[in-house]
Amino acid sequence: MIEQSDPNGTDSPILHRTYEKKPPRTFRSWLIGRPLPTADAPHQTIGKAIGLAVFAGDALSSVAYAPQETLVILAAAGAAGMSYAFPIAVAVTLLLVIVTISYQQTIHAYPGGGGAYIVARDNLGELAAQTAGAALLTDYILLAAVAVSSGAAQIVSAFPALLPYRIPLAVFLVLVIMLANLRGVRESGTLFAIPTYFFLATAFLMVIVGFIRYFNGSLGVLVDPPPVEFLHGAQAVTVFLILRAFANGTTALTGVECISNGVTAFKEPRSHNAGITMIWMSAILGFLFLGITFLLGQIGAVPSEEETVISQLARTVYAGRGILYLCTIAGTTIILVLATNTAFADFPRLAALHAGDGFLPRQLTYRGSRLVFSRGIIALGVIASLLVILFRASVTALVPLWAIGVFLSFTLSQSGMARRWWKIGHLPPNVEVRERGSTLRYGPGWQSRMAVNGFGAVCTAVVTVVFAATKFRDGAWIVVVTTPLMVATFFAIHHHYRNLARSLSLNRDQKRIGVKRHRVILPISGVHEGTLAALSYARALSDDITAVYVSIDPVEAESIQSKWDVWGEGVRLVILDSPYRLLLEPLLDYIGEVSAKRQPREMITIVVPQFIPRVWWHNLLHTQTATWLRFALLFKRGIVITDVPYQVE
Amino acid sequence: MIEQSDPNGTDSPILHRTYEKKPPRTFRSWLIGRPLPTADAPHQTIGKAIGLAVFAGDALSSVAYAPQETLVILAAAGAAGMSYAFPIAVAVTLLLVIVTISYQQTIHAYPGGGGAYIVARDNLGELAAQTAGAALLTDYILLAAVAVSSGAAQIVSAFPALLPYRIPLAVFLVLVIMLANLRGVRESGTLFAIPTYFFLATAFLMVIVGFIRYFNGSLGVLVDPPPVEFLHGAQAVTVFLILRAFANGTTALTGVECISNGVTAFKEPRSHNAGITMIWMSAILGFLFLGITFLLGQIGAVPSEEETVISQLARTVYAGRGILYLCTIAGTTIILVLATNTAFADFPRLAALHAGDGFLPRQLTYRGSRLVFSRGIIALGVIASLLVILFRASVTALVPLWAIGVFLSFTLSQSGMARRWWKIGHLPPNVEVRERGSTLRYGPGWQSRMAVNGFGAVCTAVVTVVFAATKFRDGAWIVVVTTPLMVATFFAIHHHYRNLARSLSLNRDQKRIGVKRHRVILPISGVHEGTLAALSYARALSDDITAVYVSIDPVEAESIQSKWDVWGEGVRLVILDSPYRLLLEPLLDYIGEVSAKRQPREMITIVVPQFIPRVWWHNLLHTQTATWLRFALLFKRGIVITDVPYQVE
Repeated sequence: MIEQSDPNGTDSPILHRTYEKKPPRTFRSWLIGRPLPTADAPHQTIGKAIGLAVFAGDALSSVAYAPQETLVILAAAGAAGMSYAFPIAVAVTLLLVIVTISYQQTIHAYPGGGGAYIVARDNLGELAAQTAGAALLTDYILLAAVAVSSGAAQIVSAFPALLPYRIPLAVFLVLVIMLANLRGVRESGTLFAIPTYFFLATAFLMVIVGFIRYFNGSLGVLVDPPPVEFLHGAQAVTVFLILRAFANGTTALTGVECISNGVTAFKEPRSHNAGITMIWMSAILGFLFLGITFLLGQIGAVPSEEETVISQLARTVYAGRGILYLCTIAGTTIILVLATNTAFADFPRLAALHAGDGFLPRQLTYRGSRLVFSRGIIALGVIASLLVILFRASVTALVPLWAIGVFLSFTLSQSGMARRWWKIGHLPPNVEVRERGSTLRYGPGWQSRMAVNGFGAVCTAVVTVVFAATKFRDGAWIVVVTTPLMVATFFAIHHHYRNLARSLSLNRDQKRIGVKRHRVILPISGVHEGTLAALSYARALSDDITAVYVSIDPVEAESIQSKWDVWGEGVRLVILDSPYRLLLEPLLDYIGEVSAKRQPREMITIVVPQFIPRVWWHNLLHTQTATWLRFALLFKRGIVITDVPYQVE
Repeated sequence: MIEQSDPNGTDSPILHRTYEKKPPRTFRSWLIGRPLPTADAPHQTIGKAIGLAVFAGDALSSVAYAPQETLVILAAAGAAGMSYAFPIAVAVTLLLVIVTISYQQTIHAYPGGGGAYIVARDNLGELAAQTAGAALLTDYILLAAVAVSSGAAQIVSAFPALLPYRIPLAVFLVLVIMLANLRGVRESGTLFAIPTYFFLATAFLMVIVGFIRYFNGSLGVLVDPPPVEFLHGAQAVTVFLILRAFANGTTALTGVECISNGVTAFKEPRSHNAGITMIWMSAILGFLFLGITFLLGQIGAVPSEEETVISQLARTVYAGRGILYLCTIAGTTIILVLATNTAFADFPRLAALHAGDGFLPRQLTYRGSRLVFSRGIIALGVIASLLVILFRASVTALVPLWAIGVFLSFTLSQSGMARRWWKIGHLPPNVEVRERGSTLRYGPGWQSRMAVNGFGAVCTAVVTVVFAATKFRDGAWIVVVTTPLMVATFFAIHHHYRNLARSLSLNRDQKRIGVKRHRVILPISGVHEGTLAALSYARALSDDITAVYVSIDPVEAESIQSKWDVWGEGVRLVILDSPYRLLLEPLLDYIGEVSAKRQPREMITIVVPQFIPRVWWHNLLHTQTATWLRFALLFKRGIVITDVPYQVE
C-alpha cells in the first residue's frame, strides 16, 4: 500500500492509499486473462472499409437464414408457394431501402450515437424508451441464439456426421464467444475485416458463379436434396401464408440499424462516413439476399433442418463439396459467429446504459477484471444457451420470437425521429435546445424529413403488426407477453432505486440522536468457551445484558442453570421452556417483547456466539441458529445482530 | 409467556418462562398434523400375536420378491436352470433355520434390544459397530427402495395399464409412507395386525389351494406368460450361476433380525415371547417361501419385469383375475408397504442412535413437531426415492446392492455373540460385568452356545462373501465401496464432535481477560443516511473508529471526501484507491493490516451498514458487500462483524 498525504493539505482526517497488489493468478485469470487496470485504452476511430467490416456482421449474416426461413413457410404450399419466394424477396428489399433511407437521417441527427433507446428517450419519453430497450435486449439475445443455431446448421450441412451434436455445437459456440468477450475482444478493425471480407468474397463468388451458370444454362438443379421441412403441414397459397413468408423474410433486416449506434467509432466526418457505410452495407445485403433467393428458386432448393439452403446452393453452383464449397460454408459460419459477437458487444453495453439510468440492476454497470461488462456478457451467454437448448438449435423455431422486437425498435426509433423533426420545425430560429442525445436547432425542410422518418415508422409498424399477427401462435406470443413484463420490471427497478436514493439522501435538518441505552441480548445454546467469549464481547458493549436459553429438555436446562451460576458472571439468564421443541420462535417472541418496550434512544444488539469450524462441511453438523436468527430479524428496526465467532480447531 | 419465580428461591439472576403459544396452522401442519408437546405417550407392550404382526412385515414381505429373484438368474439357463429353484429354496430355508436359532440366543442375552449395532459395539468394538451400523442403514434404505418397487410391480401386474407409470408409482408410495411417518405412525398393534393377517390369509390360501390343485392334478400351467427377463443372456448351468441364484434367494432372510431389536416392545417374559414370535415368523416364512417356489416350478412361471411371479401364480391357482386373485395381490402389496414402513421406523431410530453417540450429525437426534425423528425420515425418503428413480423401480437391479449389508450385519452380530459367550466363559463365578447393552454373568454351557452363534456367524459370513463375489459386477461393488466410505465418514464426524467438545469445555484455570481496547472499522460505499446510522452505532461502541472507502472512480471518491468533511463527525476516513476495480480485496488487505498490529486485549469490530429493502428481490439490485465480507472474514480470529441494518421503505 502506498500512503499518500491528504491532497488538500488540511487537517481533515482523510487518508489516501492505493491498493497496488496485482490480483493473483487463478483459474479465472487463466481462462479470461489477467485483470486490467482502469486506465482504459483510448478508443480508435475507423474508416469506411473497416467500419463496414465491424458493423456489417449482424446485418450481412442474415443472408444465411432469411432466404431459408422464407422458403420454410412457402414449402407448405408446394411449387406454387415456392414461386412467391423471389417476389417476397423484392418486397423485403424495398423495405430495406426504406429503412436505410430513414436511418440516414438518424445517423446525421445523432452524431453521438442514436440507438433506438436514445432516440425514443429524447423524443417519445421514458415509456417508449424502455419499450425500445426491452425490444432491443430481447433482440440481442435472440440474435445470439439464432446466429449460433444457424452457424451450427452450416457446420452440420458440411459435415452431416455432426447432425446429432447440433445442440451441443451451438451451445459450445455461444460459450466460446462468451469467453472471448469476457477476455475483452477489442473492436480492432483488422480482426473483423479479414473474416468479413472473406465471407463477402465467398458469398459474391457463389452468387456470381451461380448467375453465370444460370445464364449459360449449366446450373442444373439440386441433386440428392435433404428431407423437406414443413412447418404446418401442406397448405394452399393464401394471403396469410404469403404474409407469414414475408414476415420471415424481414429477418434479413435485422442488424441494419447497428451503425446508427456506433457513429462515434468512425473517422471524421463521422456522420457522413457512417451514412455512406450504411448505404454500402444495405446495397450488399440487398444484392446477396435477392441473388441467393433467385438462385435457390432456380435450383429447386428445399428448406431442411439437416442441410441449409446455402449449403444446397453452394454444392449445386460448385457441383459438389469441393474446396470452394467448403470456403463458402466456412465464410457463412464465420459471419454468423461475428453476428453473435455483435450481440455480445451490444447487449452488455445497452444493459449498462439501462442500469446507469436505474432501470436494471446497478451491478450491470460495473466493469469486470478485463474492463468489459462481464455480468451482462455472462447473462447473455446463459440466456442464449438456454434458448438454444429449449428450441433445439432450430432457427425456424427461434425466428417467430425474434424479428418482432427488431421491428418494434425500428418503429419507435423512426417515430422518435419524426417527432424530433416536428419539434425542430416548431422551434424559433436561433434557439438551441440541448437534449441528452443531440442538439435541436431550427432547420428548413423539416417537413420532408419528418415525412421520410414518418413513412419509415409506418412501414415498420405495419411489419411489426403483420409479424405479431401471423407468427403469434408460432411463438411471437412469447415476445408479446414478455416485452410488457420486461418494461414493467424496468420501471419497478427504477422505482426502487429512486425511493432508495430519496430515503438515503442526507437531510441537514434532521436532528441526529445518539444512542443512549444499549441493551444486549445473548442467546446461548449451552455454557462453554464459545458462550463465554460472546459474553466477554457483550460486556464490552454494554452493562445491560440478558442471556437467553431455550429449553427443550428440563434435565439439560438444570445443568445450564447450575453452570451459569458459576460462569455467568452474575449476568441475567432467562430460560424459555419450549414444550413444542421450537427453538427460534420463543427466542423471537422474547426479542419482540423486549423490542416493543424499547425507548426512542435505546438500541438492541443481539450477540450470537457462533462456532466457526475448521472445515466447511463441519457446518452441516451444527444447527445454524445464528443464521436463521439473522434472517428472521432482518426486517425488525433498531435491532443489530452480531455474531461473535469462536474458531474451533 | 408465563413468568415463574426462580425455583431455587435464591437471588440467582435466572428467570424461568414457558413459551405457551401453540405453533400456527401452516401448510406443513396441514400435511403432517399439528405439533405435539414433548409429553410423550408411554410405550405400550404387546403380545405374541400382535408382535408377529408388528415385526414380521419386513421378513414376510420377502416372499414377494425372493422367489422371483432366484428365478431371474436361473431363467438364463432355461428349463435345466429352473429345475434348481426348489433345491436352492431348501438351502435358503436351511440358512433361515440356522440364523433363527442363532438369533434366539441374542434375544435372550439382550432383553433390552440387541440389534447388530449394539451387539457389535459391546463385543467387537467401535469399528465393528460402525460397520454394522453402516450396513444396517444401507439395508434400511434398500429395503424401502426394494419394497416399494416390488409393491409397484404387484400393482402393475394386476393393472397392466399402469406399466408405464411404475417409477412414479413407486416414488409416490415412498412419499406417502414418508408423510405417514412424519405425522407419526404409532406402532399400534391393531393398525398392523389387520393388514398383516390379511396378507397371511391370502398367501396361505393361495399356497394351500395351489397344493390341493397340484395333488388332484388340476393346477395346469401358466397361460399367456409375460415376456421373460434374462439378466445376462443365455447361460449354461454352472456352479457360479447356482451360487448367484442362491445369493438372490437369501434376500428371503432380510428382516428376520427385526425382532431382536424390539424385544422391549413385548409383554413379560419379553425375551421368551420375542423368541417364540421369531420362531413362528421364521416357520411361516420358510413354509411360504418353499411352497411358493415349488408351485412356481410346477406352473412354469417366468421372471418378468411386467408381471410378478406372485401374480402369475395367483392367476394360475385361481384360474383368472377374479376377486381372490385381486385379494392376493392386494395382500402382497400391503405387506410390502408395511415392510417399507419398517424401514421408515427403524432407519431414523438407528440414525438417531448413531448421532447420539456422535457418529452422525446431532440434528438427527432432534424430534420434530410430531415427536418423530423427522430429519431421518426425510433423509430416508429422499435417498430411497432417488434409488427408485435411478434403478428404474426394478427389484432385480436393486437386489445386488442389498443383501450384502444384511448378511454383513448378521455376521457381525453373530460374531459379537460368539465373542460374548467366550467372555462369559472366562469370567470368574459370581462376578457381574455390566456392559452398555447387557450384563455378563458366568453360566455353564457357554461353549455350546458359542458354537451355535459361531456357526451362524460362519454361515452368514460365507453368504456375505458369496454374495459380494457373485453379484460384484451387478452392483454389489457399490456397497463394497460405500460401506467403508460411510464408516470413514462416521469416524470423521465423531472426531469433529470430540474435538469440539474438548475445545469448548470450560477451563477453570484459564484467566479470562476482558476487552481493553475496541477498534471499529466502518466500510462505507457512500455517504448517506444508512452510513450515518452505522456511524452512530459505531460511536456507541467505541471512540476508535476508522471509516474505509474503496475508490474505483476518482470523481466519486472526491465527492465522498467532501461529503465526509461535512457529515463524518470528524471520524478518520481511509480512501483505498483500487486500480483493478476490486472491492473486497483492498478492504480485506486493510483489515488484515490493522488486525496484524492488534494488541492482546484489543478487539476489532467491523460495522457494516446494510440496506434492508422492503421486498426480497430488491436485494438482487445491490452488491451484497456485507455478506461477502462476512464469508471472507469468518476464519479470522478476534474479528467480529456487525451489520447495522438500514430499512428502506
